[in-house]
Amino acid sequence: MTTSASPDSGSASHRPVLRLLPKANARAIRRGAPWVFENELVMDRRTRGIAPGTIATLEDHERTPLATVAVNPGSKIVARVLDREIVEIGTEWLRAKVAKALSLRERLYDAPFYRLIHAEADGFPGVIVDRFGDTLVVQPNAAWADALLPVLTEVLAEVTGCANVLKNASGRGRVLEGLDDADVVLMGAAPEAPVPVVMNGATYMADLTGGQKTGLFYDQRDNHAFAAKLSADASVIDVFSHVGGFGLAALAGGAREVLCVDGSAPALDLARAGADAMGVADRFATRQGDAFDTLTALQEDDARYDVVVCDPPAFAPSKQALDKGLRAYERIARLAAALVAEDGYLVLCSCSHAADMTAFTGACLRGIGRAGRRAVLIHTGQAGADHPFLPQLAESGYLKALFFRL
Amino acid sequence: MTTSASPDSGSASHRPVLRLLPKANARAIRRGAPWVFENELVMDRRTRGIAPGTIATLEDHERTPLATVAVNPGSKIVARVLDREIVEIGTEWLRAKVAKALSLRERLYDAPFYRLIHAEADGFPGVIVDRFGDTLVVQPNAAWADALLPVLTEVLAEVTGCANVLKNASGRGRVLEGLDDADVVLMGAAPEAPVPVVMNGATYMADLTGGQKTGLFYDQRDNHAFAAKLSADASVIDVFSHVGGFGLAALAGGAREVLCVDGSAPALDLARAGADAMGVADRFATRQGDAFDTLTALQEDDARYDVVVCDPPAFAPSKQALDKGLRAYERIARLAAALVAEDGYLVLCSCSHAADMTAFTGACLRGIGRAGRRAVLIHTGQAGADHPFLPQLAESGYLKALFFRL
Repeated sequence: MTTSASPDSGSASHRPVLRLLPKANARAIRRGAPWVFENELVMDRRTRGIAPGTIATLEDHERTPLATVAVNPGSKIVARVLDREIVEIGTEWLRAKVAKALSLRERLYDAPFYRLIHAEADGFPGVIVDRFGDTLVVQPNAAWADALLPVLTEVLAEVTGCANVLKNASGRGRVLEGLDDADVVLMGAAPEAPVPVVMNGATYMADLTGGQKTGLFYDQRDNHAFAAKLSADASVIDVFSHVGGFGLAALAGGAREVLCVDGSAPALDLARAGADAMGVADRFATRQGDAFDTLTALQEDDARYDVVVCDPPAFAPSKQALDKGLRAYERIARLAAALVAEDGYLVLCSCSHAADMTAFTGACLRGIGRAGRRAVLIHTGQAGADHPFLPQLAESGYLKALFFRL
Repeated sequence: MTTSASPDSGSASHRPVLRLLPKANARAIRRGAPWVFENELVMDRRTRGIAPGTIATLEDHERTPLATVAVNPGSKIVARVLDREIVEIGTEWLRAKVAKALSLRERLYDAPFYRLIHAEADGFPGVIVDRFGDTLVVQPNAAWADALLPVLTEVLAEVTGCANVLKNASGRGRVLEGLDDADVVLMGAAPEAPVPVVMNGATYMADLTGGQKTGLFYDQRDNHAFAAKLSADASVIDVFSHVGGFGLAALAGGAREVLCVDGSAPALDLARAGADAMGVADRFATRQGDAFDTLTALQEDDARYDVVVCDPPAFAPSKQALDKGLRAYERIARLAAALVAEDGYLVLCSCSHAADMTAFTGACLRGIGRAGRRAVLIHTGQAGADHPFLPQLAESGYLKALFFRL
């Protein structure tokens, strides 16, 4: 079926057609490459005139149909592959995709708190959906999904049984796709207070709609769990703590004392609310301030912690920023290593696409060495399995968490 | 203290001295490089005459002491760094190192079943110690440890409280170091029957001394656990199952039926004994035979499984064998992918040092593609944290487990 809200013309035979240039790699598309760029396509006037979000048929240069795609002539990624078959993109198609994504998460987690849809790897190019119990937060960061939002909302609610669906329009991808930045309640209501989310025995407060909208990052869940194992009876400092990701997990793991450091007072307030909810506020402290300044000040005070965690924002968000970013990671590693007690643990994270594992590990080791310490790597963590990874997109493996013993 | 069994001369000032050549990288040693090769050292007659296993002082070419090392002039690795300080290598030193290694494992695991010492990364060059409850199995694969074995045995028993210490001389490294291949009971007694080892809710039978000596691999523990999560109500095939590593974990995770395939009848007997001990024999089957032949035969029978696991021996044990090994991984991936049910999971492992993550992933994806399937990578697993990793040794990260959804 189709609905009036669908950008699909209702029948594959009446759709616009995009054609690959002879030089383009049709085989890559057949093998699963999800994106088609402007320089791979016949960009004639007709193609340039296709409305953003329109569903089309992609053909190779010999006119053999290759895939059902979503088109945005105004984006660098002109076509995103939705399906390798020529199919209708409507309720049935969406329902099957959401159900498949849900079935993986239900295998992985006991409670309905996870990333439900992780864009290309779940077959939803540009779309992120996070689940917080009864509430879904959708980031439709591509024109096709924005156009299909009413249908997608209904399907998401139907398949998951969730009552509330919110649109979060903060994704930077929306600007590139020419989309609005309006947050909207798509179904039900927005939670009036932060939502308590239990993971690894800790309680996190996720503010989905408040003025601060600090949200919650599910991708570090497995790494929080590993850090918690190291934290029994330990003193722990969680730098760039956000709402207490590593710090509250460490408390759940039996940490003796935890200090969360962050630049954001609202984030630290939520971390404190989590510690209160867990009944461990007596072992919890916060310190608001710049991370580099705080690490430097603590070093001057000869502070030592059994476990030091640094989970900074992306220092190398692009290839252009790589060198500068790696220097920042090295500096963090140097400052953090100086605070690690003898035989203690150092957890260094990067969510930079551009810094691959080898480059990030090298920066960390240089920093640790410059602090006069030596390290053994006991564990390498990545994003949790609710953030699957499309091997054709090198960018997918963005999250790295290195667990060192000094 | 020293003992008569110690190859250390008892005082650092009376030890032999090894000197680096001017071209050698003394800075690398200071930063943690653990090995010194023949072409980095002044290999005069005196140095060539040092008895294998002797403790010596390593100096840079300007005679500044760099490290305490163990020497074996007959090995490619002439010196292995034991300590960056000039220290006595005796009971006290061994005790501190074993205690440090133990403290990590006690944080990580609830029960005394783990790799206690993982060679260089635990400060014991060439030495492996696995713990099975009350029994330790030592692989002293370097001359210094072989020479120190009586002291090491006493220290291991004292620090861990274990009653039995066995020497396993099967390591290939022993041949390179010119050591014997005699298995010996160093303390206590060898277990008379396979030892039950509980991990991830499954019971494994570890035959530490029997004629078959199939042992147990602790390094896949975390990957077994992840596969178990995917296996609730699933049909599972575990190819190259050994004593049932993935298969028994899948049963503990609620698998509907598990088939273990291996070339070794004794290994499959131990897997079956594990299933019996777990009370799940009715959901368990084995098939003895060559993995490639069996996969091909199952494909001809149109067999399908919700979860397919292949954990083969190292197909690319050396750089010379890399191309051939990658072709074997690709072939395994192609044969295995064909058996995966729609929306099912495929777990492909490699324990080849020479095949890095990129090369192994590429081989897997080519094989999956040749089977006409497409895959999303949901999880990348490595060896557990009781197998720590010395960043200076690229070889350390040998184990890769890729979890695909097809």
